[in-house]
This record gives sequence, structure tokens and C-alpha cells, in this order.
Amino acid sequence: MRILVLGGDGYLGWPTALHLSEQGHQVAVLDNFARRGYDSELGVESLVPIEPLQSRIAVWRELTGKEIGCYIGDLCDAQFAYQVVEDFRPSAVVHFAEQRAAPYSMIDRRHAVYTQQNNVVGTLNLLYAIAEIDRDIHLVKLGTMGEYGTPNIDIEEGWLDIEHNGRRDRVLFPKRPGSFYHLSKVHDSHNIEFACRIWDLRATDLNQGVVYGQRTPETARDERLATRFDYDAVFGTVLNRFTIQAVIGHPLTVYGSGGQTRGIIDIRDTVRCIQLACENPAMRGEFRVFNQITESLSVLDIAETVARAFPGEVTIENLDNPRIEAPSHYYKVTHTALTDLGLVPHLLSDTLIESLFDITKQYAHRVRLEAMRPTVNWRNPTS
Amino acid sequence: MRILVLGGDGYLGWPTALHLSEQGHQVAVLDNFARRGYDSELGVESLVPIEPLQSRIAVWRELTGKEIGCYIGDLCDAQFAYQVVEDFRPSAVVHFAEQRAAPYSMIDRRHAVYTQQNNVVGTLNLLYAIAEIDRDIHLVKLGTMGEYGTPNIDIEEGWLDIEHNGRRDRVLFPKRPGSFYHLSKVHDSHNIEFACRIWDLRATDLNQGVVYGQRTPETARDERLATRFDYDAVFGTVLNRFTIQAVIGHPLTVYGSGGQTRGIIDIRDTVRCIQLACENPAMRGEFRVFNQITESLSVLDIAETVARAFPGEVTIENLDNPRIEAPSHYYKVTHTALTDLGLVPHLLSDTLIESLFDITKQYAHRVRLEAMRPTVNWRNPTS
Repeated sequence: MRILVLGGDGYLGWPTALHLSEQGHQVAVLDNFARRGYDSELGVESLVPIEPLQSRIAVWRELTGKEIGCYIGDLCDAQFAYQVVEDFRPSAVVHFAEQRAAPYSMIDRRHAVYTQQNNVVGTLNLLYAIAEIDRDIHLVKLGTMGEYGTPNIDIEEGWLDIEHNGRRDRVLFPKRPGSFYHLSKVHDSHNIEFACRIWDLRATDLNQGVVYGQRTPETARDERLATRFDYDAVFGTVLNRFTIQAVIGHPLTVYGSGGQTRGIIDIRDTVRCIQLACENPAMRGEFRVFNQITESLSVLDIAETVARAFPGEVTIENLDNPRIEAPSHYYKVTHTALTDLGLVPHLLSDTLIESLFDITKQYAHRVRLEAMRPTVNWRNPTS
Repeated sequence: MRILVLGGDGYLGWPTALHLSEQGHQVAVLDNFARRGYDSELGVESLVPIEPLQSRIAVWRELTGKEIGCYIGDLCDAQFAYQVVEDFRPSAVVHFAEQRAAPYSMIDRRHAVYTQQNNVVGTLNLLYAIAEIDRDIHLVKLGTMGEYGTPNIDIEEGWLDIEHNGRRDRVLFPKRPGSFYHLSKVHDSHNIEFACRIWDLRATDLNQGVVYGQRTPETARDERLATRFDYDAVFGTVLNRFTIQAVIGHPLTVYGSGGQTRGIIDIRDTVRCIQLACENPAMRGEFRVFNQITESLSVLDIAETVARAFPGEVTIENLDNPRIEAPSHYYKVTHTALTDLGLVPHLLSDTLIESLFDITKQYAHRVRLEAMRPTVNWRNPTS
């Protein structure tokens, strides 16, 4: 298949592009380097050094003989978005090209507006480009489990069969997310469902959990193929941050009591899920939603798992939660669609955590301690 | 109370400002004249001539001695939005300042992006301004019944008590709207609910039906106080358009079979609803939703009511529906919250329709026939 990976220079976009290329697909990536820009803005860097996109692509070609196409530009530039779709003529578009950090969206008004505008407008441009150029293109869109929030009922895969006053309907699962970033994904989901309904497009919305891990079989081939490994309080996700904190002797920073439960997934499963979604496309007119997680753990469980796996002293520090979220809550998620398509999950294991310790040790000198303290507070709106 | 009316130069914003002023409130309006600009862009005009905002305000002062404050600028300009809230210090903000036509949002990609960006960013700016300057300000936000779409279950007022797999929760009512405009309001609702939850703001989301009528007791005092009366296929709403078509001998243009059922409301009830919402504010932290309609009618029922009331020959023409919507469907809406607060509805009557015939006859020479033909088609996406 011809697969275009939007945001193909990012933490997951790049390993996804490599995995799809390795599986024999014709792959091109698109990126505007916004993610590298956020690092500059925040004064942090990926723990693991990453090569420029052009070098990564050259190394992959050198090692495998496989070519990955490259488009540099911004999806919010409609002319560019249309040109890329016209030029590459994908059969699937994998859409990672969004600002993806909840704390970043909560820095201030400007960052909230940027996040919603960037994510919603980029996706609208893409929907129109597909609708005008080739409605057969399958959109594989990255959403987030955070869209659902923490309802007191079981979380189904995107849709919910309900009965009310004796009548029945199948409705979009009600969403109640916890940041302007998560809200931007809710907006996207509504826009995409509408586009499938009126233009007969085909789309898969992947509500992904918190991703952990840093290596896939493809990125592990050469250190110049490495993907990002973020540990800062804005872009670093919880399990990755804990492993780094353990290695450098920093307390694991648990927000509040740590009773918040989240769906998680190994990076190797992420790239496999994307492959499965692409190779088993939604039907024309179908808005299909998969919950892309493999298990659920509380933040405290994750901290304790990391602490147990670490060969040394680890302390856990409960910080005032800078976010506003339920400290403990019901959480049960249906996630059978991707295993039905063939996903065999890598569940969280000591082996995986130990490999993260090794990566961290190699680059521990690059850690900036102050970057791990949360500075963005949900309670303090500023312009 | 001090009440700031955003979009106070528009079809409903202006009569609302007058009504609130008449009721003894201190009123200011804010507008960027986007609505007058859409007329220029589309080459149409309100059937009833309208005065410049400054003249309207001067006439009202002249007739009543009451002062209406005036801020000219764009809510998407955050600095301006903050300055106005700082300067006027409202206790309630009534927010009409959005692009409000479904067909306008479906013209092409550019208009879809404009609509979502304008509506969502303006509202985000306002939420931040309220959160930073005075969290006690009550936001009274105009939504639309179109946010719900046409579910096969009863439409409740914004929230839904559900049971699923033996567990219960109260969730936001699931939405499935029919245009990028309606979607922008869904996005707003989610953003506002979140702001109430994290910043303890107070908000009332008014999901308004299709408004008909052109006169309120206040605008009727002087023709220089008249509000807009739109009949074009982009901004003209269905009942107003039918009365104009009847008077000028044009067939009533029913889209499809006319089985689409919609909630409707008289303009005099709209301004009263806004008053009731302001005078009975939501509690701190509460995201309250009212369905602002007084009855439900099918499009064909509306056409036949107009035809019956008209003293002459009227024909009905069924056009291919340019929208994509269910041709007939279940539609039952709960709308008791506003009557519980004291609304006494003006139901659709021959007297009201006859008054619209009179207004139309007076200005029939201003009608441009070609403006009544739908040119925006939901099926044809263009950039």
C-alpha cells in the first residue's frame, strides 16, 4: 500500500513510518518540525539524541534499500496539504500531525488556542483534500483515550448503544476530557464522523493510551534511527519519565495520590496497531473507532512497577496534582477490535523496563532535572 | 445587572440588547460587523433596511434616555476581548458573536475553517478572559438545537442520565450535527463544560431552535431600531424565507420532502429567554443547558402554515435537498427549563405570520429572487 505518515518525524510517527516501510509498504512522511520547535521553546531535548529527518531517511535507505518519501510543510497550509495528497496519492493517511501534550495546551491562552487551531484546522484541511482528490483514501487518525475522561460506565470503542425512555439508538460515546489538547481531539472526532457521513469517507479513529518504550525492531537497527525519548514534565509521558527518574536517583513524581488509572501501550504495539488499521481499512462511509491500549494501570501501580524493577533505591514523591482530574475512579475499557485484527500485545514487563533503564543510563548526562518539575497548572489561566 | 451582548449588531443580538436595556439592565454591545460583511460577500441585503450600529444606539438613547455601551472589535483578538471585559465589568456576557449559518460554513473548505476557527477561538478567548478577570461572570452562550442532530431517542437538555452494563452516569448528551457550523457549536459546548469544571466558571448553553419573526416591542418603536430580516438561501431561516416567498409570488422552496422536523421559537421569546437566563444565573462550576424552543414542526408543516395564512395563491416547490439530513425521523425534545423560569411562549400563529406579510410587502421591491435558490451543496467539497 501507499501510506502517508503525517507527523512522521515525531516520537511515534517516525517508528511507524519505519515499521510500515519494513512491512513492504510505500511510505512517505510529512512534517513541519513543530515538535522540535516545542523543545526549543521549552529549553529541553529528547533524552536520546535524534538525527535530522533527512539523515534518518538516508540511513534507512542505506541499511535497507527502502525509500521513504519526504514532504516538509504544514498541514494548516491547505495548498500544501492538497499538493502532497495529489502528489503521493496514498491509499492510507496516518495522521499523527498534531500538538499532543496536555500540559502544553494548558500553559496559557495562547497555547490553548494554538493547540485547538493547529489540530482542528490541519484535520479539516486533510478531510477536504481527501474528499476532493480521492474519497477512497483511508484516514487513520490518532486520537487519545483521554477524550473519554473517566466516566462511571464502561468505555466502549467510540460508539455506544443506548436505550432511553424505551427507545434505542447508537450514538457517539459521550466525551468529557481533561485538557484543551484532549478537547481538540474530541473536536476532530466529531468533524471526521461528519465527513464520513456526508462525503462517504472511510476513517479509523485510534484512541490511544499512554505510550511507553523507545525502541522498535526497526529503530534498534542503528542509533541514527532512534526516536525521541521525552522526560520533561510537558511532553514526557508517565512511564518513560519514571524510568528516567529512577536511574538518575530522582524521586518518581506521582501527581496526587496516583489513583488515576490510564490505559497504556508499548511502542512496539503502537506501530503494529497502525499497520493493522491500514491493512484492514474501514468501509466507505464508516467512522470506526478503536481503543488502542493493551492494559490499564493506575499511576501509582506504574510507579511501583518501575521501583520494583530498578536494581537500587527508588523513592516516590506525591506532588500536588497540577491537573484537575478525579483522584480515583472507575475505569474499564473495551479494547478488543485491534486484537480481533491480530494484535498480540506486549504487556508491561520487567524486561521492557530494564531496557529503558539501559537507554537512560547511556544518556543520563543529558538530563536537566528542573525539566521534570511540573510548572503548568490547570488552575491558573493566563493569557 | 451589567450585561455585555457579544454580536450585539446582529439579527438577535440587537433586539436582545434593547430588551435587556428596556428591562433596566446596564447594557453594552460588542461587534466586529462580520455579519454585515457576509452580506457584502454574498451580494445580498437584509430585506428590512438596518441602520448603522452607532445610529441605532443613538435612536434608542433619544427615545428612552437609556445608554447602550459600544465596543467595536473582534473577539478573536484576545487583547481586545480582555480589555472589554476589564472595562465593562459585566455580571453576565451574552455570546451571539459567532458565524451562525450552516450553509455559509459548507460553501467550501475556507468557509468551514473560518467558521470553526472564528467561533472556537473567540469563545476560548472569552473563557480565558472570564477566568482571569472575574470568575463570577455568568456566560450565556448561544448554541443550537442542530448540535443534537436527529437522534432516535428523546433529546434532553444537554445532559443525559444513562445506564450501561449495570452502571450509571450523567453524561453530556451525545451530539451528531449536520454542518461544520453546527459542529463549531458542539466544540464550544465541550470547551465551555471543561472551563466550568476546572475554573469553576458558571455558564448557560442555550440550544436555540430556528428563530422566526422580525419585531420585538422594543424594535417596533421606531423603524430605525429594526433588526435584520434575511431571506437568502445562506442566512435566511426557513419560516422567514417562506413568508417572503409567499408575498412575492415565488414558490415556497422546501428542501426534499419537507419531513425534517425542527424546533422553532418566536424572536420575542428569544429575547425573553436570554433575559431569564441572565436574571437566574447558573451556579459557580455549573454548565447548564437549556433547549430554547417552544414547539417542533416539520418543514412541510411550516410551509403549509404559511400557505394557509396567505390571502392568495401559494405554491410549494420541493427542491433536491442540498443538505444531507434524514428526510423524516423521530424528534422529541425536552424544553421545560425556560418555562420553569417563567417563559410564556408565543406559539406560531396566523397573526405573527400576517405581520411578517406586512413587513415583506413594505420592502418587497428589495428582494433579489436569485438569492433564494440554494447554491451551497453539502455533497460538493471544494477548497
